[in-house]
Amino acid sequence: MAAEKTTAASDPAGWTAVETRERVAGGEVTVATVAEAVLARIAAEDEAIGAFAFVDAARVRAEARRLDGHRVSGRPLGPLHGVPVAIKDVIDTADMPTENGTVLDAGRRPDRDATLVARLKAAGALVVGKTAATELAFLHPARTRNPHDPERTPGGSSSGSAAAVAAGMVPLAVGTQTAGSVIRPASFCGIVGFKPTHGLVSRAGVLQLAAPLDTVGGFARTVEDVALLVDAMAGHDPADPDTRVEAPPQLFSIASSRPPVRPDLAFVRGPAWDEAAAETKAAFAELQEVLGEAVATVQLPDIFHEAASAHRRLVTAGMARNLRRYGESGWDALSETMQATLAEGRAVTAVDYLSALDWREVLGVGLDRIFERYDAIVTPATPGEAPHGLGSTGSPAFSVLWTLCGLPSVSLPLLQGPHGLPVGVQLVGRRGYDGRLLRTARWLAAHIAAATQGGECHG
Amino acid sequence: MAAEKTTAASDPAGWTAVETRERVAGGEVTVATVAEAVLARIAAEDEAIGAFAFVDAARVRAEARRLDGHRVSGRPLGPLHGVPVAIKDVIDTADMPTENGTVLDAGRRPDRDATLVARLKAAGALVVGKTAATELAFLHPARTRNPHDPERTPGGSSSGSAAAVAAGMVPLAVGTQTAGSVIRPASFCGIVGFKPTHGLVSRAGVLQLAAPLDTVGGFARTVEDVALLVDAMAGHDPADPDTRVEAPPQLFSIASSRPPVRPDLAFVRGPAWDEAAAETKAAFAELQEVLGEAVATVQLPDIFHEAASAHRRLVTAGMARNLRRYGESGWDALSETMQATLAEGRAVTAVDYLSALDWREVLGVGLDRIFERYDAIVTPATPGEAPHGLGSTGSPAFSVLWTLCGLPSVSLPLLQGPHGLPVGVQLVGRRGYDGRLLRTARWLAAHIAAATQGGECHG
Repeated sequence: MAAEKTTAASDPAGWTAVETRERVAGGEVTVATVAEAVLARIAAEDEAIGAFAFVDAARVRAEARRLDGHRVSGRPLGPLHGVPVAIKDVIDTADMPTENGTVLDAGRRPDRDATLVARLKAAGALVVGKTAATELAFLHPARTRNPHDPERTPGGSSSGSAAAVAAGMVPLAVGTQTAGSVIRPASFCGIVGFKPTHGLVSRAGVLQLAAPLDTVGGFARTVEDVALLVDAMAGHDPADPDTRVEAPPQLFSIASSRPPVRPDLAFVRGPAWDEAAAETKAAFAELQEVLGEAVATVQLPDIFHEAASAHRRLVTAGMARNLRRYGESGWDALSETMQATLAEGRAVTAVDYLSALDWREVLGVGLDRIFERYDAIVTPATPGEAPHGLGSTGSPAFSVLWTLCGLPSVSLPLLQGPHGLPVGVQLVGRRGYDGRLLRTARWLAAHIAAATQGGECHG
Repeated sequence: MAAEKTTAASDPAGWTAVETRERVAGGEVTVATVAEAVLARIAAEDEAIGAFAFVDAARVRAEARRLDGHRVSGRPLGPLHGVPVAIKDVIDTADMPTENGTVLDAGRRPDRDATLVARLKAAGALVVGKTAATELAFLHPARTRNPHDPERTPGGSSSGSAAAVAAGMVPLAVGTQTAGSVIRPASFCGIVGFKPTHGLVSRAGVLQLAAPLDTVGGFARTVEDVALLVDAMAGHDPADPDTRVEAPPQLFSIASSRPPVRPDLAFVRGPAWDEAAAETKAAFAELQEVLGEAVATVQLPDIFHEAASAHRRLVTAGMARNLRRYGESGWDALSETMQATLAEGRAVTAVDYLSALDWREVLGVGLDRIFERYDAIVTPATPGEAPHGLGSTGSPAFSVLWTLCGLPSVSLPLLQGPHGLPVGVQLVGRRGYDGRLLRTARWLAAHIAAATQGGECHG
């Protein structure tokens, strides 16, 4: 997996989150040293990539000093103490601007941190800066380029978060997904992207598009790292009614453990299969061969083709409601795509909206049947590698069904496209079984690496 | 309170639920004897009143024998063992028809009991029959008459449940409220009606109009009795996502206790005050005098006038979605009111629906402020006494705001209108504080009885 390539013992910017926190906690390195390494990497790389929307080096250094002071004082350390984290710029931060990817929010300074940011800080994370997002976390691209090829999109809407991790500027970054905004850029950038179960992480202080779909997720170069990140953000928040009062998910602990028996995987083509590139289809055939008895093909009934339409109604109507103030205050400053989407959303009837919510339940019950027999669904994360050009962020079609149903999903950088660019394998788990999904993901990555000896299937 | 007038030691049909369960449990009377008394009362009274949609005497007798057999066997008794309960005919029962107040469901036999019916049976209740409801639990009247005056409406939509309790046919009956369908008939029929916090009682197997509003409630002749009824129905049900995993509400225990200090009440006119009859306004002035320092007038800001429009959008759009099959299969069999409502609901946009849900939150937060200082809100239950004629069930306007916000409310038969008919005083409590609300209600009833010596204020 990519993590091994970018880890250099000498450069703290390349360490994984797990390595960083262990070295900081053990006194091998100060947070100040980690901060300097990260700032140097950003200074060297980010002009070409454009992953960050905001970095204030003085602020990062002051935070690092505060974290070092905390450690020296002998007080207990949080699970992310000294680990650099980048935050998508649709997530409120009280000490940095939050511009939501639109000039209409230029210079906007929220009163307070989003709940998840406060939790990351409480866990000791070193918040490095804000990452570029597409316009209002929808389709119109940010200026970010794909670290693997500057002429290609990094995917969106969490473009900067994915690119920052892929370029080795930070080990962890936070993203959000309403259609495919975590899984798609993770696939295109060749890193691990994890969208947990809907409601696991609070969205209080996060730009709202469509509450039944909006989900906070994360990027990292390893499965363990992303588990550590989401562990720190998860949990009930009275300010987000979709979060639940329940025991902590213990993602890191479960993801780090060995599966008690070999996982059983269901290969599901899904309603977007026709969009997949020929090479992607071939790569999945190869993957199935490698997995042998561990995978079985499961066909979804035609009814699952309803997912795209139901998802679209929820997204567009939700955006028309939640982004109304942007349309009112600056219609002309919105992209044509955004204008058309808001207009489409305004025309959705309440009856069609409610029936879309019902579809979500019906299809979710159907998928539960699969999870009674299989540990996870295996399916493409994207149609193929990142498309050429920066005018589009690519298709979220392979994420829509799982996002609609609120299921946890993870993209693993296991495949390569015809141009040598990364393509993700998506694993989808049962609602609420996020730790098990990540454990299965680790197993799959290790299994593929052992079977192919190179760690990647070539499409 | 009315309970004292109808309780006759010799006739089990007139006993309260508390009396009945104690006498049955103590072996003073068999459930069979209770059943015969109830069947006799129904036979004598119901031809004129029309409270019941379905009673099968043989079935009731068989159930009574089964319950007596259970008691004789020495097994533990449920909290409602042998207590007669009537069920509104929009609530599914596997052993009786459920016709939802429309010819389109004539002879309909559900496969299984609604969750709440199963819970009542598990608590030992003697389910006596199904009570008449308005068409699909909305506004078009059932044939039920007001037991206090056959030329007047009993209110709706839980018309038969309220009339059956008011006429002394059963001590307990179950109703549902989406606008004012428990509080209004309770007020018009001179009994206690209780609509608990939204989500306290499962709606699985109950006709759905609008999930954010639909609430199961109950009728009785005393506050303790209605507490006992709702205790038996309450609790989490995976089949109803609006129910919560939480400790039992212990309504009977809390309602039966004395308030630790004198309750502080907020007299709130509310957005419907202009609809109140002059006599109702005068009665509330008198009530305030009687309460003295225990009550303070609290003015709601103008923004609360949004409640009616938000509520209407949620109801009509919800009905257009959930009752669609009735429109498709038998449009001509629907009343004009229903046809117009479904058409109105189909025209509601998703954006307006979502903004109505947001209003619910905003207004709920505003009302929370009141509950930080006051134990309950006091306000009319209806504009006045039951209107003349059977063509309408009267106005739910005094319930709309509280139903929209999901707050528990109770109607107490404390006032009399100009024609000597009952008028309810409505108490509204904080979300989730149902027991405290009922305890305050008992205190209020006792306080008024002591202060006026006759137990009623005359409007």
